[in-house]
Amino acid sequence: MKIQLALDRLSIEEAIKIAGQAEKFIDIFEVGTSLIKEYGIVSISRLKEAFPDKLILADMKTMDNAIYEFQLCFEAGADMATVMGVSPLQTIETCLEAAAEHQKKTMIDLLNTSEEQRTALFPYTEAIFCDHVSKDVQEKSGLHNTASATFDPSLQWAIAGGITGESIQTMAGPLPDIVVIGSAITKAPQPEKAAEALSEIIERKKAESHGSA
Amino acid sequence: MKIQLALDRLSIEEAIKIAGQAEKFIDIFEVGTSLIKEYGIVSISRLKEAFPDKLILADMKTMDNAIYEFQLCFEAGADMATVMGVSPLQTIETCLEAAAEHQKKTMIDLLNTSEEQRTALFPYTEAIFCDHVSKDVQEKSGLHNTASATFDPSLQWAIAGGITGESIQTMAGPLPDIVVIGSAITKAPQPEKAAEALSEIIERKKAESHGSA
Repeated sequence: MKIQLALDRLSIEEAIKIAGQAEKFIDIFEVGTSLIKEYGIVSISRLKEAFPDKLILADMKTMDNAIYEFQLCFEAGADMATVMGVSPLQTIETCLEAAAEHQKKTMIDLLNTSEEQRTALFPYTEAIFCDHVSKDVQEKSGLHNTASATFDPSLQWAIAGGITGESIQTMAGPLPDIVVIGSAITKAPQPEKAAEALSEIIERKKAESHGSA
Repeated sequence: MKIQLALDRLSIEEAIKIAGQAEKFIDIFEVGTSLIKEYGIVSISRLKEAFPDKLILADMKTMDNAIYEFQLCFEAGADMATVMGVSPLQTIETCLEAAAEHQKKTMIDLLNTSEEQRTALFPYTEAIFCDHVSKDVQEKSGLHNTASATFDPSLQWAIAGGITGESIQTMAGPLPDIVVIGSAITKAPQPEKAAEALSEIIERKKAESHGSA
């Protein structure tokens, strides 16, 4: 279970600063959609330059123009990029092809997908699937990702959307491959301490899970 | 029926140059998603500075984080911004609220929406609905927007996705409020001539439509 730190609603400099503070405990730095739309693709190359040995995920949230968008972010140094599961399958397939060509990874964001759409997507087993409760849904409905979903363990999974140490502690069943953490670290008074605490919870969870397996 | 020129897969300088060439025949300049993701929000402010008297649409394709994204682009000078119809209703409502607060407009992109989703969206009559065949669907399936859909005339409509002079000529029924044209102008050897020719077709179509009404 890797930790992905979502860097959103920050300047590039702030994002690099917080990433540096939490670096030791983080596996993947996510360049958030807000950074990409506010500052452009340079937000990806700046993060990769600052952390050349870390995995960088570009949260492109691609809906169309897949080859252009995915090439842009892979050329900027991203190791992974996201496409929306609600987009046409033609877009998703183009993303997977672009990722394969660059030997990179596609994350399919399942936000607001129907059961029918998810069933159509799961055969793309090379992708990572992201079970995602969006920020707007969290804020307007008071919901967040309780990390209680049961995942098909033959697929690669990430979970995102208001994940905290508490929600990780209550996880049952197979653990996802990636937990995406945003404001629980970026808005903490001491991001390094927050990342360390979350990392400890995750290590305990992994040990428990091995123990029960 | 207004003409919206979609500026995509160009540098900001090229976009401003082509927009200037076609200006006389265009009502709305669309800052394409590719410009926003490649160069950031400055792509919007640069277009607005260059054409302060034109309507500027920011093709944000918002899926989440609506208040942040819509404020960013309205503050940069956009008059209209897009949200995906496939996003959660909480996101769409937040976009409409942000637009109302700034006295701006929301365009809801209906790309890949289900009938159920469209039915849920149509009560938001303050929005402009965009009937959209995406670039990836066009390229992978050889389809384009044939402009043959029948629109509920009580709503505001845009059509997008490979629209050409020919597809405008074959339109039947109530005309949309906006036709979105991209490469038929931006990739023409002479964008000004292409925009003029399309504008003439649209003027004839409007005259026909008034004649038959």
